[in-house]
Amino acid sequence: MAIRLNLQNAGLREHELEYARPLAEAANRALHERSGAGSEMLGWLDLPEAYDREEFARIQAAAKRIQEQSEVLVAIGIGGSYLGARAGLEFVKGPFGNQLRNKGAEVYFAGNNLSSAYVQNLFDIIGDRDFSVNVISKSGTTTEPAVAFRLFKARLEEKYGKDGARERIYATTDAHKGALRGLAEEEGYETFVVPDNIGGRFSCLSAVGLLPMAAGGMDIARVMQGCADARTAYSNPKLSENDAMRYASVRYGMLAKGKCTEILASYEPSLTMFGEWYKQLMAESEGKDGKGLFPVSANFTTDLHSIGQFIQDGARSLFETVLWVERSGHDLTVPEDPANVDGLNFAAGMTMQQMNEKAMKGTLLAHVDGGTPNVVITLDRLDDYTFGELVYFFWKSLAVSGYLLGVNPFDQPGVEAYKKNMFALLGKPGFESAKAALEARLQGI
Amino acid sequence: MAIRLNLQNAGLREHELEYARPLAEAANRALHERSGAGSEMLGWLDLPEAYDREEFARIQAAAKRIQEQSEVLVAIGIGGSYLGARAGLEFVKGPFGNQLRNKGAEVYFAGNNLSSAYVQNLFDIIGDRDFSVNVISKSGTTTEPAVAFRLFKARLEEKYGKDGARERIYATTDAHKGALRGLAEEEGYETFVVPDNIGGRFSCLSAVGLLPMAAGGMDIARVMQGCADARTAYSNPKLSENDAMRYASVRYGMLAKGKCTEILASYEPSLTMFGEWYKQLMAESEGKDGKGLFPVSANFTTDLHSIGQFIQDGARSLFETVLWVERSGHDLTVPEDPANVDGLNFAAGMTMQQMNEKAMKGTLLAHVDGGTPNVVITLDRLDDYTFGELVYFFWKSLAVSGYLLGVNPFDQPGVEAYKKNMFALLGKPGFESAKAALEARLQGI
Repeated sequence: MAIRLNLQNAGLREHELEYARPLAEAANRALHERSGAGSEMLGWLDLPEAYDREEFARIQAAAKRIQEQSEVLVAIGIGGSYLGARAGLEFVKGPFGNQLRNKGAEVYFAGNNLSSAYVQNLFDIIGDRDFSVNVISKSGTTTEPAVAFRLFKARLEEKYGKDGARERIYATTDAHKGALRGLAEEEGYETFVVPDNIGGRFSCLSAVGLLPMAAGGMDIARVMQGCADARTAYSNPKLSENDAMRYASVRYGMLAKGKCTEILASYEPSLTMFGEWYKQLMAESEGKDGKGLFPVSANFTTDLHSIGQFIQDGARSLFETVLWVERSGHDLTVPEDPANVDGLNFAAGMTMQQMNEKAMKGTLLAHVDGGTPNVVITLDRLDDYTFGELVYFFWKSLAVSGYLLGVNPFDQPGVEAYKKNMFALLGKPGFESAKAALEARLQGI
Repeated sequence: MAIRLNLQNAGLREHELEYARPLAEAANRALHERSGAGSEMLGWLDLPEAYDREEFARIQAAAKRIQEQSEVLVAIGIGGSYLGARAGLEFVKGPFGNQLRNKGAEVYFAGNNLSSAYVQNLFDIIGDRDFSVNVISKSGTTTEPAVAFRLFKARLEEKYGKDGARERIYATTDAHKGALRGLAEEEGYETFVVPDNIGGRFSCLSAVGLLPMAAGGMDIARVMQGCADARTAYSNPKLSENDAMRYASVRYGMLAKGKCTEILASYEPSLTMFGEWYKQLMAESEGKDGKGLFPVSANFTTDLHSIGQFIQDGARSLFETVLWVERSGHDLTVPEDPANVDGLNFAAGMTMQQMNEKAMKGTLLAHVDGGTPNVVITLDRLDDYTFGELVYFFWKSLAVSGYLLGVNPFDQPGVEAYKKNMFALLGKPGFESAKAALEARLQGI
């Protein structure tokens, strides 16, 4: 395995995991027997074995075509149709991947907000360069991606004509029904499938995430291999031999110990967007029925000079999961300076990675001593394989902890509430009746 | 004022602010009388009136020189010597400011982490282009910026020779003492001052933040004007007439209502880094003595498809402060589509800004109905003036709420804990004694 779990600073007493065993194993059994809540949405569980090889080859071919026809791919989607692909690309290519242009197409993400300035920025970044669009929406009617798709489609048609635009639009949508499926077939876009039995936050290793990742230069076959190996490892029904279940038990136990917030902390800026992906996975899966650990992410050592003070000494409501990357992609060494004015010569000749490691270890113990338990997940390196493995680890772990919490980890009913109000305020047909009452409550804002 | 506070959805009963009045006004009095905890660190309170005009003019001149001599400025600093300048630049120039190159120098931030890959990325982004360095450190011995400064200084000397490098290094440091002050005088760097009586997280409108902001093209005179106007407005001793104090009272009251986490939410990606700045300000100021509201930031509508589910329906431990920008920098319109496959024609002809506003208002009411109180801060626009005003608003409010909480809002003792452990593990002279005991606790990680 390319990832390892270490619980020795998680504040567990020796008996705790043993006492948790029957529950965790029951939750895991409910998952594999497909007898728990939301079991119709378990398509991700066997995905790395069961995925459609024909479609996978088409994704690889389409990615190659995108790289040939365009410098830029605009991936249009929101939530799970956005975060996974971006997390993967930054995991492997780093936060400056688009500027460095060292691999694949530049990939920008649109349709995940309603900021006009943001879309205009993307227009300006594309300039007169060639670009393609991957529109990702199961229904084709979700507001944010629909707005962005209208804008980028108009741009494509203006630049390439209607026929030229068709060859640069790739639609990832429902296999059979829905607005985008209909349009794609009418226009002749190449299409890929958003599976029926995989929710958005579990969809990044379906065509939803794989096409932008491959277009951006990721080796998606290695991603799937990492995911497949994780599936094998984390299918072990015994708690003591299954790190995904052990992690689930620890997270669930933190709630019982009075912790309400979990922090996913990393020491590589490349993991910032992985933190965002993690937050969606955890918050949407567990934050319901008045329950849940609130998920937060942090980038160290930067945030040790920000929320670090709170983690060390504020309200004792937190615990941390540290993502530690054992082999950094580069290996710069601290230069010797004869004058030694900064007093740093004790570290001259060390690699930054060695220093980063001491920072991580020193922080870990400081936070534990301050009353913030720490779980450590060590990753071999930030490559395609490890990304696939880590994604599956968190999927599996979250599914088990969601069942431990007594929620349906696979729905997200609360996401509809803002949409309904927004539609009413926008005057969308079918939602008019609530409009006046809502507006009355908004006077003065 | 360019900002407005709205409390009508904060879940307050009519009497609450009246009952809070004596406390808030006492806290504010302690601040202005300089009789409260940490009052030696109140240099920010009158900063927009009292700042050094001679140095300010030198900052503007240096920024112009940097723009003339270099395409890129590398600003080296951590915590308050990093976040404010980056927050300001993205506030005004947007998240893609460096790629769009529409104003000032490209500004990248280093010395805020120990990632080798990150520094190598910056080297690659600079390539063979001209660059300058602003090293920002009161002592000159803080580990992260010291490492980065050695690396970038070596790079400068290699490219421009020792003399050429000196002309491209700008040092912001202690006025009289410390390693970096000594080096700067010896080498003849142009220097600027990190004030003695202003802590890092309040320093972004001193030379610490102003030089990178000005080099990146911000109008720092307008920033200071916004800050000065905010100082006037928020010096009013009456709670009922002082929005900074009203906001402080509300935040403090949230704790008493059982909320433990505050979310600063915005609807413009340009505010992402402002959220990071806010988190440092709040977490370092209040997260001590086992107390504090844990600060989190969110980008909507993106995060409505992530932590949105939790905000709507998870554990009821949250409240939100919404930053709403009234005038977006651009005004794209939703195109008409005769086929209307996405059903979006009801919005055709609307601006994205109008849609974003309905999203904000719909979300606000949905979250309030779900049990998450909302405070709204409306900003006229994302410009230099508003940035200065908003920064002072939060400084002032935080100072009052810190006193309400009974902490010293101006120290950060917990930040030292990780450093001590890190130094011991690194074998830094003077810290050796703790090394063996720490290492024993780290076996297996």
